[in-house]
Amino acid sequence: MNDEPAEPTVRDVSDWWSTAVSRIEPNIIEFRGRPIQDLIGRISFAGVIWLMLRGDVPSPAAEKLLEAALVSSVDHGPHAPSVAVARMAATCGIGLNNAVASGVNLLGDVHGGAGEQCVALLAEITLAEREEGDVDRAASLVIDRWRARSKYLPGFGHRFHTVDPRRDALLGLVEKAVAERVVEGTYLRAATAVERALAAARPRPVPINIDGCTAVVYGELGFAPPLARGLFVLSRSVGLLAHAWEETGQGRRNKGPMPPSILPTFLDA
Amino acid sequence: MNDEPAEPTVRDVSDWWSTAVSRIEPNIIEFRGRPIQDLIGRISFAGVIWLMLRGDVPSPAAEKLLEAALVSSVDHGPHAPSVAVARMAATCGIGLNNAVASGVNLLGDVHGGAGEQCVALLAEITLAEREEGDVDRAASLVIDRWRARSKYLPGFGHRFHTVDPRRDALLGLVEKAVAERVVEGTYLRAATAVERALAAARPRPVPINIDGCTAVVYGELGFAPPLARGLFVLSRSVGLLAHAWEETGQGRRNKGPMPPSILPTFLDA
Amino acid sequence: MNDEPAEPTVRDVSDWWSTAVSRIEPNIIEFRGRPIQDLIGRISFAGVIWLMLRGDVPSPAAEKLLEAALVSSVDHGPHAPSVAVARMAATCGIGLNNAVASGVNLLGDVHGGAGEQCVALLAEITLAEREEGDVDRAASLVIDRWRARSKYLPGFGHRFHTVDPRRDALLGLVEKAVAERVVEGTYLRAATAVERALAAARPRPVPINIDGCTAVVYGELGFAPPLARGLFVLSRSVGLLAHAWEETGQGRRNKGPMPPSILPTFLDA
Amino acid sequence: MNDEPAEPTVRDVSDWWSTAVSRIEPNIIEFRGRPIQDLIGRISFAGVIWLMLRGDVPSPAAEKLLEAALVSSVDHGPHAPSVAVARMAATCGIGLNNAVASGVNLLGDVHGGAGEQCVALLAEITLAEREEGDVDRAASLVIDRWRARSKYLPGFGHRFHTVDPRRDALLGLVEKAVAERVVEGTYLRAATAVERALAAARPRPVPINIDGCTAVVYGELGFAPPLARGLFVLSRSVGLLAHAWEETGQGRRNKGPMPPSILPTFLDA
Repeated sequence: MNDEPAEPTVRDVSDWWSTAVSRIEPNIIEFRGRPIQDLIGRISFAGVIWLMLRGDVPSPAAEKLLEAALVSSVDHGPHAPSVAVARMAATCGIGLNNAVASGVNLLGDVHGGAGEQCVALLAEITLAEREEGDVDRAASLVIDRWRARSKYLPGFGHRFHTVDPRRDALLGLVEKAVAERVVEGTYLRAATAVERALAAARPRPVPINIDGCTAVVYGELGFAPPLARGLFVLSRSVGLLAHAWEETGQGRRNKGPMPPSILPTFLDA
Repeated sequence: MNDEPAEPTVRDVSDWWSTAVSRIEPNIIEFRGRPIQDLIGRISFAGVIWLMLRGDVPSPAAEKLLEAALVSSVDHGPHAPSVAVARMAATCGIGLNNAVASGVNLLGDVHGGAGEQCVALLAEITLAEREEGDVDRAASLVIDRWRARSKYLPGFGHRFHTVDPRRDALLGLVEKAVAERVVEGTYLRAATAVERALAAARPRPVPINIDGCTAVVYGELGFAPPLARGLFVLSRSVGLLAHAWEETGQGRRNKGPMPPSILPTFLDA
Repeated sequence: MNDEPAEPTVRDVSDWWSTAVSRIEPNIIEFRGRPIQDLIGRISFAGVIWLMLRGDVPSPAAEKLLEAALVSSVDHGPHAPSVAVARMAATCGIGLNNAVASGVNLLGDVHGGAGEQCVALLAEITLAEREEGDVDRAASLVIDRWRARSKYLPGFGHRFHTVDPRRDALLGLVEKAVAERVVEGTYLRAATAVERALAAARPRPVPINIDGCTAVVYGELGFAPPLARGLFVLSRSVGLLAHAWEETGQGRRNKGPMPPSILPTFLDA
Repeated sequence: MNDEPAEPTVRDVSDWWSTAVSRIEPNIIEFRGRPIQDLIGRISFAGVIWLMLRGDVPSPAAEKLLEAALVSSVDHGPHAPSVAVARMAATCGIGLNNAVASGVNLLGDVHGGAGEQCVALLAEITLAEREEGDVDRAASLVIDRWRARSKYLPGFGHRFHTVDPRRDALLGLVEKAVAERVVEGTYLRAATAVERALAAARPRPVPINIDGCTAVVYGELGFAPPLARGLFVLSRSVGLLAHAWEETGQGRRNKGPMPPSILPTFLDA
């Protein structure tokens, strides 16, 4: 504003909003350079997610892996804060979209963000493995580094699952994909090294959790760490919608965290 | 509180949060009664969306139709307010989940809600068809009824597409599904009757738009009208994430609706 | 797009974003035509709320009334869904702003919207009073009309307050303002007529609630009905922030609606 | 869950949601221990904000200072992303509360968070001053430390204001408060030391901005750094509401970032 600016033009505005994600013109819609009519009926929903985020179409095997991870984390019940929020929101006289948005808003560094951090953790172990020549030594080194910063190791440990039923299902698919050379297996190797390290070091095992398992998949598939959170958002939105919709059908109004029968006890507290 | 309430119990609280959507116990996760380990690797992402919202698994043909509708509406570029919001949000120092949530929050009665209303419109025409014995008479009757309430007919008309490239692709798949007796075709028949009525009545054609096309699919598949908005939310979230992520990569801070070069003009206005 | 559009200009863009709310130019900031430096230190926070929404500065008496209404509804405890949401959100690793936004998002037609509807209800009674010549007959007529549409009469009835302690405090201030000719008293008269009608018609009294009391104030002050919801948003945001902040200080992570001790009972349900 | 948990009780649930912010029982409402009826009509809106966040009532002079800061940042026009978002949201068929929430959601680390960081910066300088015995040396030291981490110094510099008209107004009030011993003046001293350091070190002055000025106020008043962001949320919500409301009155639907006249240029881009 102090410097003499060039005369602004309308082109400045359209450039400001230009994008490589899609091209929209009268009677033309392209996603990442592909006409929409060539996609509808030919690409899966998981496939278009990959396309929109990365610009290319996944191989069938890679798409299958992505799909498995998306399926695995759609819901974890109403004691998860995001789900409770979506359900309460649905009773307050706002749209289903607002109810889902309220739940998605909670999927931050602590609730869902673990996946993003875990991809970073596993990538760090993979790097260290190259220097150390041994994945277990690399894992133990990197775990110490992370523990110095925080007592939580992202992707490991769960409040009540000792063996998460999603672990073997998801990691089994990754193993198969490694055998078929669909993915390299570095993230899987890093994750199991962490499991071994945690099993040895503590009185009770700290198993890998769903954030850890999906981080293995997203890492193997080459997604940037922040997209682990992004993909979790797409996945969990399904559960948020299902819960908000179920709650809508029950007709409650202004649902709070406690049932009315409890309120007297709470109110006297 | 005036009436003597029964002594509240812990069970009241767990009942308050009970759900048929999922069952989560230590080492057990079930979605709609199905163990998660039986779903991972065997059901598509579109399939689990259907399962979570309706409790059963779709037939392959029905799933394909749902998938096509979900694919078709993932994005419509940054001049859509929801997309602009997600992109600006991504530059403000909040998480990707918050950026997506901000965009989803805008998918209300006007921006995306048209699908919900269009399912209702088409259902009304189907009902009237039974009474009138003729779909065109039914359509014209119901259009008049809706026009009396609002000048917008949900699912028809577009700012700049005269022939939306998604129309033939999507409705073609529905036609095929009708021929194969996957769906009944009542919503498709109602929608094309509206198209005929609008083509006849006005100087320039008011073509069906994407909200109308997906409403045909969702209606044929038996989704309740509010879920048309819900499914649009799941679909558009993909585009919101892709745009927020692209914006993140460009490193802008505090992106407003106008480029800095325009600001002097704006500020002097 | 079909019609030949005039050549677009940069001015179109700045016009698109033009506003009468504020003027921002290099080294100039005006709210509703008033230089910011003339406002800072001279106008109260309640005063600037009025200025921004209406364009003028309230009289001291009117400002006092607005302030009382804003103070009265800042909080109603964590069993209100909006407050529970803000508290849970604060434990999920997102910003305080996101926690407050999540709570505000719930203040819809059912949770907070009652104020907006109640201003409309009372305005309708005032109109009917002019025709009927009697406020009680007008109230009873309008109540019947509203009851035909919904079983909830906005602004009246409460889950557990039989005499809301905010009622006399707020309505007392309105009475005083009527006596001092600050406001006309039509909304107050309509509200008390509804109270009389409800006291007579039912086994137990349905007292006016806080949405009703603030609706009287906002109606008397001439705010449009939707701004009753808007002002409630500004007021309740204070409580949302206070609760989110208290929760932050307690260090919980991923707080759900039920304490961990209850989870086993819930999970076995 | 592995350890034998104590038998859960209803008290666990009410404890889980216990709070010191407010007490709500039948016919009793207390904010921070004060009956609501003693507050209505006696405390200002700014006063109740202080009360809710801190538990006590401010002195009149402290309240005045808080009020000035809240007034100063209610708006900065529609080229701020939060304001643009609130305006676009208001055209999408969602409630005013949802429009405000969408805007508040953007007030993150980059857009509004500067206040939070600036309180921390100034606090660090104050600490360093005690060791160094000289505020200018302390400022220069701490600036170097912050610059090593990020190229942005929170609270200083503006895109187009060279002298922000809010600076003298706000800092003048702080100076007065220091003279009257309402506040100590350490944050003011630190901020002006930063101004001096920046004036000396660079070709063109990097003036303190509004985030910096309000950080001085909030720091002097003893608010924790994250509450600088929280208070900004309360303040800016006023502008968001005013803009959303103005936009509502203009009746646009689905307002995007660019006017329709520009779209052809954009779409051909």
